[in-house]
Amino acid sequence: MDLNSDLAEGFGRWELGDDAALLRIVTSANVACGFHAGDASVIRTACEHAAEQGVAVGAQVGYRDLAGFGRRFIDVPPAELTNDVIYQIGALAALTHVAGTEVTYVKPHGALYNAIVHHREQAAAVVAAVRAYDPDLAVLGLPGSAWLELAEEAGLRVFREAFADRAYTPEGTLVSRREKGAVLHDPDAIAERCVRIARGEPIEAVDGSWISVRAQSICVHGDSPGAVKIAEAVRERLADEDVRLEAFAPPRR
Amino acid sequence: MDLNSDLAEGFGRWELGDDAALLRIVTSANVACGFHAGDASVIRTACEHAAEQGVAVGAQVGYRDLAGFGRRFIDVPPAELTNDVIYQIGALAALTHVAGTEVTYVKPHGALYNAIVHHREQAAAVVAAVRAYDPDLAVLGLPGSAWLELAEEAGLRVFREAFADRAYTPEGTLVSRREKGAVLHDPDAIAERCVRIARGEPIEAVDGSWISVRAQSICVHGDSPGAVKIAEAVRERLADEDVRLEAFAPPRR
Amino acid sequence: MDLNSDLAEGFGRWELGDDAALLRIVTSANVACGFHAGDASVIRTACEHAAEQGVAVGAQVGYRDLAGFGRRFIDVPPAELTNDVIYQIGALAALTHVAGTEVTYVKPHGALYNAIVHHREQAAAVVAAVRAYDPDLAVLGLPGSAWLELAEEAGLRVFREAFADRAYTPEGTLVSRREKGAVLHDPDAIAERCVRIARGEPIEAVDGSWISVRAQSICVHGDSPGAVKIAEAVRERLADEDVRLEAFAPPRR
Amino acid sequence: MDLNSDLAEGFGRWELGDDAALLRIVTSANVACGFHAGDASVIRTACEHAAEQGVAVGAQVGYRDLAGFGRRFIDVPPAELTNDVIYQIGALAALTHVAGTEVTYVKPHGALYNAIVHHREQAAAVVAAVRAYDPDLAVLGLPGSAWLELAEEAGLRVFREAFADRAYTPEGTLVSRREKGAVLHDPDAIAERCVRIARGEPIEAVDGSWISVRAQSICVHGDSPGAVKIAEAVRERLADEDVRLEAFAPPRR
Repeated sequence: MDLNSDLAEGFGRWELGDDAALLRIVTSANVACGFHAGDASVIRTACEHAAEQGVAVGAQVGYRDLAGFGRRFIDVPPAELTNDVIYQIGALAALTHVAGTEVTYVKPHGALYNAIVHHREQAAAVVAAVRAYDPDLAVLGLPGSAWLELAEEAGLRVFREAFADRAYTPEGTLVSRREKGAVLHDPDAIAERCVRIARGEPIEAVDGSWISVRAQSICVHGDSPGAVKIAEAVRERLADEDVRLEAFAPPRR
Repeated sequence: MDLNSDLAEGFGRWELGDDAALLRIVTSANVACGFHAGDASVIRTACEHAAEQGVAVGAQVGYRDLAGFGRRFIDVPPAELTNDVIYQIGALAALTHVAGTEVTYVKPHGALYNAIVHHREQAAAVVAAVRAYDPDLAVLGLPGSAWLELAEEAGLRVFREAFADRAYTPEGTLVSRREKGAVLHDPDAIAERCVRIARGEPIEAVDGSWISVRAQSICVHGDSPGAVKIAEAVRERLADEDVRLEAFAPPRR
Repeated sequence: MDLNSDLAEGFGRWELGDDAALLRIVTSANVACGFHAGDASVIRTACEHAAEQGVAVGAQVGYRDLAGFGRRFIDVPPAELTNDVIYQIGALAALTHVAGTEVTYVKPHGALYNAIVHHREQAAAVVAAVRAYDPDLAVLGLPGSAWLELAEEAGLRVFREAFADRAYTPEGTLVSRREKGAVLHDPDAIAERCVRIARGEPIEAVDGSWISVRAQSICVHGDSPGAVKIAEAVRERLADEDVRLEAFAPPRR
Repeated sequence: MDLNSDLAEGFGRWELGDDAALLRIVTSANVACGFHAGDASVIRTACEHAAEQGVAVGAQVGYRDLAGFGRRFIDVPPAELTNDVIYQIGALAALTHVAGTEVTYVKPHGALYNAIVHHREQAAAVVAAVRAYDPDLAVLGLPGSAWLELAEEAGLRVFREAFADRAYTPEGTLVSRREKGAVLHDPDAIAERCVRIARGEPIEAVDGSWISVRAQSICVHGDSPGAVKIAEAVRERLADEDVRLEAFAPPRR
């Protein structure tokens, strides 16, 4: 099982999240690439720490929208989106290179992540970017998304993720953040659920039914002090249960 | 002798210069990297055309300043500047890669170009970026600049350029654009001067004295219809005089 | 009848359109406010020329998207959109003030203009901005749009525009730019149609049927040499036919 | 005596400082205008709270540099700087207007603040902006700066500020942040010094000599928990000593 989290989401004077703490917890770091967050210096520092800790680095590509933190859907024409994604991966690749590591996977961010669950043109555009840049890159995303479906068709290595702190519908999709109970807060309950996912056991959906969530990675958050504690609880609990934590796409050098 | 020019300096809706025309004239293209100009799509298109024409691609790195087109000095701390330059080279490298070519040199843009003639901290910061990213990259700049001096000390391959349409002082530096006669406009006179530079013969300075300008590349401009005609005149005249035009840092693949 | 056109759509080094030429033709200038185009200097210059010519100035507010020129829908939450619009109107108001004129109306730009034809939340957000800032401002838009409907309900002064060079469906809406024949190019035919609209006579729709288009303003474009000529032809023809041209919301000082 | 502090310095997802806490302490709020920090929503919220608390709002204009938080000198040509400042004041003015208050003064931010202590062209450019927009606006700055000198010559109302937590040289200028002891940390010592400044009594310079600092306002910081506590200590101590706190440029409505 892999644990992934978003990193390098500060920008200039503005800090966000505790990258150093998270890099002692996760096995894969989704590093912002400068379009929704992440200037070159915060990216480089995160990559250096990831290299030291042996944490895999993924490109957390997003819409060009610092003001909206990449959380607002933008109707970018597919060809432009492909080029914007290539630009972002390349920028990050250079900074990982000087940090002594490399980009091994791509996980889109925020509104782009959500859009390409269903928006096939944009999903195809991101897939095209990965294929054109380096078809050996892995991709990480939501099970059942157009993004993973098209990536698989394109011959890319596809990995699925579950969300440690999000409630699931009986159909196995995420409960919308706008609904009550969408986000879990109890570290023990969250950790317990992660163990079940890691073992391939069913978890409880929001309506009390039991569903199966297949995932090679679990996403944890780190942009609040409470979030880091939850991530730590998940990590410890998985260790206690002898679940082996390792990156799904480890650095090759 | 090499001819270089700035390319991919549009941004989104805004076009600038005639990239297609210039790529039939020059042997090296200084491609904008998105910080002073150049979105991912205009960069990719320029790189594809450069690849088709066999023109070498250099990273035209600049200050992060779209509003000022990179023409305003910014007092960026050296460590940040190093990271910003790595980011830009990497972004361009990815787009050259998908276009079937590669970045073979670095030529800073605008106010950064001017600053690092004398500003040793910023010059060293750009040198550090190139070394960290790829010490096989060549660098292009003004003879006598701190930039080239420090690049040479750092073991980088250094190339010097002359300006086809700029007047020179008796000391061999450029006459400031704020002074009268700083920019030449007569295509024949400009072409004649380029021939002399290519042959290693002295050229006339602004005061009528004769100076020697050693350069492996001549910079031509292309952001106006007249500029493209001058560049064509230079190219034709050099061909007439059997000056062989070739990139100082040709693509390796 | 009023003639309106988009102005001040350059940014820094990048020029777009011939503002000086257009300001001799139109009676209302939709001045960009810096979010999709228009830096403070290009805005001020346009406002100074508008003041000299007695042309009314409207705030051409848009999405914050320089890279996309405001032409890509962005799912901005309504409260944020309201504030972004107030910010833009205020910035323009300050520059019109120093130029000796004032903002008298609001016309959204590009993708925002298109979105608020149907997107009621965003339409209401822009209406809320105008009401909060100055309920005496007029608003300009597409007949039948949610934008004008909600503005009217809010007690704002509402003006409708027709498009000189766009084909209409039998229902009186614009033919999508993606369809053939969506844009007219013949200056005489365009001018003829403008005369009919000015007189309240029916015009021919794309299918040959005749429809009535009620408008107090006609939008002409100016971002290409051909466009300026068309605008001139429209202006001359309306003058020949004794159609009086005047701003629907003239400057009050 | 007036207490001023920087506010609204978040941007989108990124928060900075505790605006609500500061607005219970200060009498004047230097509100960011969007160029170095501050999106329209964070600005509006700060202005609404300022209006509720009766705190005066000043325009904290800066260089266009979100990545550098306005802390890097930019060699902006004076005419452009004038226009950029007008744009920023206008944007803020609109948001203060809908918040039920108004802009009553201008205090430049960061590198611009520092530059116009000596850089007369840029100082004159900011003065020109204030004069052109509204000569009734007050200006706040460093005693002895070109900014205040030129503002006074231009007939603007000029106010001088002291820094609560900064060491002074024997000449009455600030000790550079790069030097040891430049920033004071002891709340009691800082509060004591503020009392002395408020009473017009000399304070101790960094070398132990005693200097006179004439100021109508004292700047306190709020971008760290410790900073808010210091600001509170200053406020309480001044109240204990019967120093009356009031804005130097109170809202007129």
